Amino acid sequence: MTDPVLKHALDHQPQLIEALKTLVACPSVGADPAMSQGMEDARQIVEGRLDAMEFQRLQRLTPADGTGQPAIYGERMDAPGKPTMLVYAHYDVQPPDPLEKWDTPPFEPVERDGRLFGRGISDDKGPMMIALETLAAFVAVEGKLPINVKLLIEGEEETGSPSLPGILETHRELLDADAVLSADGARWRPDLVALNVGSRGNAGFEIRVQTASQDLHSGRYGGIVANPLHVLSGLISSLHDDTGHIAAPVFYEGVAEPTNAERAEIAEIPYDEESSFEVIDAKPHGETGYSTLERLWMRPTVDVNGMWGGYTGAGSKTVIPNEAFAKLTMRLVPGQDPETAKQAVIQHLKSQLPDYASMDVYGDRGQGGAYAVPEDHPLLQAAVSALEQTTGQTPLKVRIGASLPLTEIVSRILGLDTVMFSFALSDENFHAPNEFFRLSSITDGLAAWVQIMRQIEAIDRQAFSAFRRT
Amino acid sequence: MTDPVLKHALDHQPQLIEALKTLVACPSVGADPAMSQGMEDARQIVEGRLDAMEFQRLQRLTPADGTGQPAIYGERMDAPGKPTMLVYAHYDVQPPDPLEKWDTPPFEPVERDGRLFGRGISDDKGPMMIALETLAAFVAVEGKLPINVKLLIEGEEETGSPSLPGILETHRELLDADAVLSADGARWRPDLVALNVGSRGNAGFEIRVQTASQDLHSGRYGGIVANPLHVLSGLISSLHDDTGHIAAPVFYEGVAEPTNAERAEIAEIPYDEESSFEVIDAKPHGETGYSTLERLWMRPTVDVNGMWGGYTGAGSKTVIPNEAFAKLTMRLVPGQDPETAKQAVIQHLKSQLPDYASMDVYGDRGQGGAYAVPEDHPLLQAAVSALEQTTGQTPLKVRIGASLPLTEIVSRILGLDTVMFSFALSDENFHAPNEFFRLSSITDGLAAWVQIMRQIEAIDRQAFSAFRRT
Ligand SMILES: [Zn+2]
Ligand SMILES: [Zn+2]
Repeated sequence: MTDPVLKHALDHQPQLIEALKTLVACPSVGADPAMSQGMEDARQIVEGRLDAMEFQRLQRLTPADGTGQPAIYGERMDAPGKPTMLVYAHYDVQPPDPLEKWDTPPFEPVERDGRLFGRGISDDKGPMMIALETLAAFVAVEGKLPINVKLLIEGEEETGSPSLPGILETHRELLDADAVLSADGARWRPDLVALNVGSRGNAGFEIRVQTASQDLHSGRYGGIVANPLHVLSGLISSLHDDTGHIAAPVFYEGVAEPTNAERAEIAEIPYDEESSFEVIDAKPHGETGYSTLERLWMRPTVDVNGMWGGYTGAGSKTVIPNEAFAKLTMRLVPGQDPETAKQAVIQHLKSQLPDYASMDVYGDRGQGGAYAVPEDHPLLQAAVSALEQTTGQTPLKVRIGASLPLTEIVSRILGLDTVMFSFALSDENFHAPNEFFRLSSITDGLAAWVQIMRQIEAIDRQAFSAFRRT
Repeated sequence: MTDPVLKHALDHQPQLIEALKTLVACPSVGADPAMSQGMEDARQIVEGRLDAMEFQRLQRLTPADGTGQPAIYGERMDAPGKPTMLVYAHYDVQPPDPLEKWDTPPFEPVERDGRLFGRGISDDKGPMMIALETLAAFVAVEGKLPINVKLLIEGEEETGSPSLPGILETHRELLDADAVLSADGARWRPDLVALNVGSRGNAGFEIRVQTASQDLHSGRYGGIVANPLHVLSGLISSLHDDTGHIAAPVFYEGVAEPTNAERAEIAEIPYDEESSFEVIDAKPHGETGYSTLERLWMRPTVDVNGMWGGYTGAGSKTVIPNEAFAKLTMRLVPGQDPETAKQAVIQHLKSQLPDYASMDVYGDRGQGGAYAVPEDHPLLQAAVSALEQTTGQTPLKVRIGASLPLTEIVSRILGLDTVMFSFALSDENFHAPNEFFRLSSITDGLAAWVQIMRQIEAIDRQAFSAFRRT
């Protein structure tokens, strides 16, 4: 017999889709000051819906200084003694450029072949609506939620969440919960039932290598002065040894080798390496002794994202430049302290610098640690059960090679763990033209969200306390 | 007792200076099609002067296809049985940009503090006028020249002499001579009496390293694909070993180690290394086992003149680029075949390329061999004697680290040696704003040019035949 809440939610999918289209029609591009009206329109639609669902303490949250795009807050504390979830989503979207590559205008959502197209529809307005309408179905059918829910709907996710730490710090009491359930964060692949249980951290900086006070002519100086492009090449080459291992031992401080169990789990994941690399016309390459997925999920990296110096125009110029530049970023894994890892790379570069060159380090990129949900976290177990029951399959636990600032910020400031429970799929062109969201994901998502609410309801609140770090 | 020819020449310095100013007032910038009238005006002034000096067979020379800026030709074969010199100069000048850095307009020559200022006045109009007015003085005083002179006044020196090989090939008979005496090519330093006896050759190309068909995101690919900036850095690093030696043995094919005599000669040259490097805030750096001047004059180099890839704008972008680029040029020394040397570097790079990357080589820069006047060449000996007699000092034999296309082209096509006998000084801002020419150089130059004509007159023509290569 279908859960009456789920039946209600499924019956109201046409209304959900209409509401989603209305929301997607608001150009809530946080990065573009010219679109501030789109941001405000999106906020008002979300607030209107929460109000209709009788969410309490509705308010806009900013850091103490009042700056930034406000996050929307509302709560229903319907279930005393039951767990409290901080449910996360975001209403801001990526810029739509390049506009000419869209088949239909980004802010005029349309349905084609079982897909809804529009900017932000997969990241994160579709997944957010699934979460909201699941809650609405509970309220409509049962008159209340089975657990306590605090909603935090951010407006700066696509611009790097600069205000989120301040919002969490300023509203620590208001946002207190047992764990975070995120409606953002895409699922890996359409062909797999999976849960994302970890992400890498990041850090970065820029260097400038200098060998003289001015550009020099190679006819007058070739062979008698150092060339900063040669020096910089040497520094970059020195970062990795022949096995692809980073040649700065301190960089690996705190990094655990994957256990046999982890390796076995990763090895079991169906992954067509050959075709994955064929699409990008590249060959697998990385640290010796690790599989591709181990490299991507369990191993830290240092990459040069940009490098330049000297004459880069058409034709030739026989210059020996006096300076050369490189931008570097790292991907970090659990156990690494970002500052320690970054300083290890900087110290390594300094140790390799010859005495005829100088080096500046600047342009700190901000940084964040890696994150992994504890394997036995009750919310993760609830998510596993919910997917098992709605898909008939045990979800594979996967990680991502990228960073999820939310998880790390929430962990650091509120001491809470986060489970990503989005129904976006990673092939849905978010951050690219022709972003879309599968209609089938709405059905799948509603079923899973109704079920995870039931699962959380069944958890003894005390089970969370072992994991809370504040 | 002063040579009456020299006395005449010195007495007519005011006229020489006036004529020089008139010539400098023509903006003969060959690189700028908008200044073609300036080129034509300069040609007509030079032709008028040669006509007045009763030079014969006056004509404009181009390659067989008639393209390019014509060179001016004229001859006086006044001395049957005596040596014939092909006297070289050029009437085109460098572009004057940046105009705002000139204290007075570049094409309004003025005299200040013993210096004449104007674009092209040092390179090469002043030195050319010294040569021409020396010849005029002989004609005025003695009614003829003491030797046979063929004048070749080029119009494309500052744009790389693209037509010069064709001109020499097409007019091989007309231009046949015993040796080339050049009024172009600066003296090294005001404080030294020196003769430039050698220059380095050059070659160059561009490479592109590719590892994938598109830029990749470091969150999705960091650690599992090769980064072309790392690959390129490795290639560039592999070019030199720890001693600064180029790690491609074939590159050194034909390169002779400096002899003890050459090293001793170089060591004797007064050269304040410390202050030379202080001005550019750099430290001496190069191949172990060689002095700075040996490195600059006797040793070949490979330098990266430009290198780039990935994101080079402000801030950060976590991209793994799919391609990276470098522009490379070489400086070559006598004995090296430019093509062999270039291919040695290319083959070395290919041999270092890992199998997960591909490399294109393109953008050939053209190339030219190094050049050195044979030590016992009669024209070099004549130049030494002329300077000894007019300065009281034995000129030091120096080389330059840059390339002199003229010497190499003339050697290759006409089989003739060239002696540079310019009275420009290397600090006179040619190729820069506020180019100037010392008035004292006119006096010094006239004396030396009168004297070298006398010296050449005394050479038995047969002495040249051992050196002619056609
Ligand atoms: Zn998102
Ligand atoms: Zn010149």
